[in-house]
Amino acid sequence: MLNAYEELEKHFQRLARIEHAMTFLQWDQLVMMPPGGSEARARAIAELAAMHHERLTAPQLGELIGEADQQPLDTVRRRSLLEMVRVWRRAVCLSADLVKAKSLAGSKCENGWRTQRRENDWRGFLGNFREVVDLAREEARARRAAEPERFTTPYDALLDLYCTGDDSDFIRHVFTELKRQLPELLDRVPDRQPEGLADLAGTYPLEAQERLNRKLMTCLGFDFNAGRLDVSLHPFSTGDRGDHRITTRFRETGFVDALMATAHETGHAAYESGLPAETDGLPVGRARNLCLHESQSLLFEKHLFQSRSFIDFFAGQVRNALPSARKFSGGDIWSASAHVTPGLIRIEADEVTYPLHVILRFEIERDLINAALEPVDIPEIWDEKMQAYLGLSTRGNDTDGCLQDIHWTDGSFGYFPSYTIGALNAAQLFAAIRRQYPDWPERLGRGEVSFVRDWLEEKVWRKGASMDSQEIMREATGETTGPAAFLEHLHARYLDRAY
Amino acid sequence: MLNAYEELEKHFQRLARIEHAMTFLQWDQLVMMPPGGSEARARAIAELAAMHHERLTAPQLGELIGEADQQPLDTVRRRSLLEMVRVWRRAVCLSADLVKAKSLAGSKCENGWRTQRRENDWRGFLGNFREVVDLAREEARARRAAEPERFTTPYDALLDLYCTGDDSDFIRHVFTELKRQLPELLDRVPDRQPEGLADLAGTYPLEAQERLNRKLMTCLGFDFNAGRLDVSLHPFSTGDRGDHRITTRFRETGFVDALMATAHETGHAAYESGLPAETDGLPVGRARNLCLHESQSLLFEKHLFQSRSFIDFFAGQVRNALPSARKFSGGDIWSASAHVTPGLIRIEADEVTYPLHVILRFEIERDLINAALEPVDIPEIWDEKMQAYLGLSTRGNDTDGCLQDIHWTDGSFGYFPSYTIGALNAAQLFAAIRRQYPDWPERLGRGEVSFVRDWLEEKVWRKGASMDSQEIMREATGETTGPAAFLEHLHARYLDRAY
Repeated sequence: MLNAYEELEKHFQRLARIEHAMTFLQWDQLVMMPPGGSEARARAIAELAAMHHERLTAPQLGELIGEADQQPLDTVRRRSLLEMVRVWRRAVCLSADLVKAKSLAGSKCENGWRTQRRENDWRGFLGNFREVVDLAREEARARRAAEPERFTTPYDALLDLYCTGDDSDFIRHVFTELKRQLPELLDRVPDRQPEGLADLAGTYPLEAQERLNRKLMTCLGFDFNAGRLDVSLHPFSTGDRGDHRITTRFRETGFVDALMATAHETGHAAYESGLPAETDGLPVGRARNLCLHESQSLLFEKHLFQSRSFIDFFAGQVRNALPSARKFSGGDIWSASAHVTPGLIRIEADEVTYPLHVILRFEIERDLINAALEPVDIPEIWDEKMQAYLGLSTRGNDTDGCLQDIHWTDGSFGYFPSYTIGALNAAQLFAAIRRQYPDWPERLGRGEVSFVRDWLEEKVWRKGASMDSQEIMREATGETTGPAAFLEHLHARYLDRAY
Repeated sequence: MLNAYEELEKHFQRLARIEHAMTFLQWDQLVMMPPGGSEARARAIAELAAMHHERLTAPQLGELIGEADQQPLDTVRRRSLLEMVRVWRRAVCLSADLVKAKSLAGSKCENGWRTQRRENDWRGFLGNFREVVDLAREEARARRAAEPERFTTPYDALLDLYCTGDDSDFIRHVFTELKRQLPELLDRVPDRQPEGLADLAGTYPLEAQERLNRKLMTCLGFDFNAGRLDVSLHPFSTGDRGDHRITTRFRETGFVDALMATAHETGHAAYESGLPAETDGLPVGRARNLCLHESQSLLFEKHLFQSRSFIDFFAGQVRNALPSARKFSGGDIWSASAHVTPGLIRIEADEVTYPLHVILRFEIERDLINAALEPVDIPEIWDEKMQAYLGLSTRGNDTDGCLQDIHWTDGSFGYFPSYTIGALNAAQLFAAIRRQYPDWPERLGRGEVSFVRDWLEEKVWRKGASMDSQEIMREATGETTGPAAFLEHLHARYLDRAY
């Protein structure tokens, strides 16, 4: 007979199978499904989600958790139990009514936003958004009440869903330093940007680009026997063990953006492919948090692919694949990819300005959820912060200001910081790799990336969720997440034009 | 509050959502999934199947059925309940042990067959196959015991899973007539085949073929907003409301086979797309049986696409799409597609000889399940029947004899007859359409097929499972399924070379 902990393992593995079904049905929905299928698909996914929730919140599971907690468990199983409890608690702490109300208000607000954004209609948006914020605050309070010892503010309870283990105080501390140093660095960049950048605009047939992107993935260690590349409106990555699916998007007039997106998603897939097989299907076998997930994608995108030496290597492939690109050197491509221009839109932002977009959002959403700021005041504070951090104004232009992102429309508060903590983690991890492999430019210059993958697999991927995020960072790099390595990287790339 | 019948509707609609999930996960498995995903996928599908079975066999459902049966129900709901009971009874009448044993023995036998077939190893196959037959006999007895008033023999209880409503006595009767007339017709064909057939072999790029096949689907009324065409090892069709997915396969050296396969699967998809929306998700809203399903695919393949007038029309598209086909007239393509050669392999058989392959299998599997024949005697009786029906011998060549099909390896006895009853239904339905539209050749000759789709939608598709198969046939064509229209069609096409 199985003991309580073993029963729990079985229970969570069965839940993982329902998650597998939802994962691939959602992938299909975004990548393959014709429009006519949306109604039946939505109903099927909702049914699976309901079955999943029902099983995760079954009273029997709570009892098993209580029993297992009294068992003598070794460290590995104790940790595994902790992660099960985390998943379970997140599900049981919200009432079914709140979940339903949130989902309805979120759909309504997101739906309205699609036209309101275009029409710069903040007032119309606010009409729906107020309820989304009210419900998110209620959610935050409920989540905090379930674990008052862990969450010092309501916002922290939402942040924890994405940045698990990195709390708002820690993030504020790191961001403060970044906010102090970035504008100064940004001021110095324009003088160091090369004159007469090559214009990479041209005509690049989509089929040839697709082949080129597959080549890039193979160079970056992606295994096509255990995954796919497809095209979708927004690049994303998803999948399950042995089947990692990433998407990218192509435009005929350029080739760099697609390669960057592909490298980025290949990094996400790499993390997932390296998760520990022995705890497959259990919460402890999953990726630690989004801050580490994003660090892997950004490491592949910004530090591997976009490094001067890798681009020098890969430029040969580009020239082979795309006749109109024959005239470009590695230097041309690298310089064009590493160009800095402050702008209003986060998703178009370069590596240097991106964190300022995120810090602005972090500060606003934190105050919003902690009820230190009301929705009606967002446009004004957004404009103030844009002026302070990037010297740009969004006054009267909410389309390119506080209406630009989808995240808040359905109440996903707490997600934004993971982008920048991810960028800091990526730089810090790659700095550690550089220290261990001083010949890294030569290696990347001949297209060798396995030393990076092996290092990451050992230090990050194989850990799954068996350690806290900052334990992983400390063991891997010698310290917890901080801005130093990232700033040093920006300095080297954008001031010294070194790599 | 819902009454018992309404509760049942809700219950079955929820089951349909799990079926939706399994449908598209299986599609993905065959069309998209990389090899690395097979383990996780198999587990996920097994989990969904278990949840489906658990819900379908829940005691509560049996109670609701009992209650609903006592309710005053209108004809429509009474019929709907009948179909629910059919689905439910099929699930509850087998023990979990038998289902599991059958699945294990089937997997083992099918797996071994993949090499045993190649190696002409009947003895090795028999080692596994005996258990498959024993378990299928046990299954047949159990299914028959659940409805002794409906099934006069054990075989009928298996046949009913595929040919629902068309029992073995009815099928035997129809096949007897066919068996009497076909060989004679077959004897006369060679003299009527045209001399000097055009050789359609050439080089036809796959991308161009894919575009051509999409064009064919559009000509046949397929809506790409509600479906897809993809490539798989064996063509098939699947899907759900608003999302009908068919696959085909291409070879670079020919283009006719792919077009025939695509037309065939488009017919399957057409039936599904025309099922009644108002009973969506309920058993009564499904396709009636495989004999009618196959009739729609064969009608699209053999009577629409392969008609002389449609091919004359479509040949223009072929010549536009495939430069190497520019030299072929509609007549060339039609003659090549309508060539008869008796052979050993069912799936390569032409329209005239195919039924003889099926009748042979029907007679053997019926006697096998009814314990009038033992597995060990199959090769001998196979050879005897091949000699009698097609004048060919498989003595010592089981690879191309009784080892050629996958169906029996996992115990799917009762499936084969649907191919030929489907062919008879197709000819009979199309004869009725021809009677109603005497200008059918002119219509097809200008690529018009909507009159056929509209007729089928009204007479077959929209009926779902609200009538028995032979009621549908009688209302649509004036009589129950018989061989006359099929033989007349063969006569017209292969002796008179008319259409």
